[in-house]
Amino acid sequence: MRHMTGTSTATSTRVRMTPEGRREQLLDLGVRLLSTRSLEQVSIEVLSEEAGISRGLLYHYFGSKEDFHRAVVRRAADDLIAVTAPGQGDDLTAVLTDSLGAYVDYVVANRPGYLSLVRAAAGGNEALREIYEEARASLTGRMFERAGEHGISALGYEDTPSARLMVRGWSALAESVVLDWSADQHGLTRDELLAALAASLFGALDAAP
Amino acid sequence: MRHMTGTSTATSTRVRMTPEGRREQLLDLGVRLLSTRSLEQVSIEVLSEEAGISRGLLYHYFGSKEDFHRAVVRRAADDLIAVTAPGQGDDLTAVLTDSLGAYVDYVVANRPGYLSLVRAAAGGNEALREIYEEARASLTGRMFERAGEHGISALGYEDTPSARLMVRGWSALAESVVLDWSADQHGLTRDELLAALAASLFGALDAAP
Repeated sequence: MRHMTGTSTATSTRVRMTPEGRREQLLDLGVRLLSTRSLEQVSIEVLSEEAGISRGLLYHYFGSKEDFHRAVVRRAADDLIAVTAPGQGDDLTAVLTDSLGAYVDYVVANRPGYLSLVRAAAGGNEALREIYEEARASLTGRMFERAGEHGISALGYEDTPSARLMVRGWSALAESVVLDWSADQHGLTRDELLAALAASLFGALDAAP
Repeated sequence: MRHMTGTSTATSTRVRMTPEGRREQLLDLGVRLLSTRSLEQVSIEVLSEEAGISRGLLYHYFGSKEDFHRAVVRRAADDLIAVTAPGQGDDLTAVLTDSLGAYVDYVVANRPGYLSLVRAAAGGNEALREIYEEARASLTGRMFERAGEHGISALGYEDTPSARLMVRGWSALAESVVLDWSADQHGLTRDELLAALAASLFGALDAAP
């Protein structure tokens, strides 16, 4: 994960940064703001205040509020895909559980922003839906793309259209369960949650004909 | 399910209907329109045209477009809950499969409207979200409320917070899978789909600690 070094440093180093570096830094700040507030609350005004630079300059980097939101959400989705990347190892269930653990930790650490992304994507914002769907496809597709190496075929599951349908459905289950759990643990420890998510994935795969 | 008898009949019988009966009839028409178009496309204008009565009279029955949409969605949710009501019978899996079959048929027959409801509810329309969440709670809660009679306890599952968390998650899986399947069957027949949905429910329940 990337980190800002603080508002004052960001301001004092502005003149030495490339435009691309500056833009990246502002995106990082946008993503960080998104961890504690919804997308609607991460406005150009708030970003300008937090970054200590003018709204005019922000509009120079991001043409409109919509462009800015798209760029922040794209960065957040890339971060999520990166932190949940499956590790190496022969124990596929352990690899899966680690990846799920990173997903759970991400949602817990970024609940307001993640929830607002899910809602914005589901609610008909086509640009955000596209990013969300890409992230979802990436998160679930990895289970198949590594087939033969660490993928599900190592566990005896075939890569069929119905298996993909069920894994995609399971990702909706995981999203629902993790969002619910991050608000109320329902008596489940983090380890129990991860075990339940992994088991339900195998249950969904077993259910595919 | 309720049915309109047609535009001309609706118009000619208007004077003989009670206000409440007339309102019900307009709601039925709204729900029927929702089967082939999104919520946004079911406007007061379209309803007025289809029902053959003035916009002013429609506003008399439904104070605003938002009130009208809420009432139509409430009626659609009630219809969905009614058509998927579990039947009687000792074979719990058969009862579940029949209920799931009614859900699948409902989504297939009303895909545009159902999809727009899911999106509107997920997208932060609080009034619609409330109706959607009530419907979801009703659809999943029934599995527990009939515990001991036809509920999941008859299959050896306990009614615990974690079981409820997983069943709620499974309802997200079912919604995702059925919406995907109604657009592209992924090589699954309706019967195979129903078997996969039932098996994934048991998989999700088995996954709860």
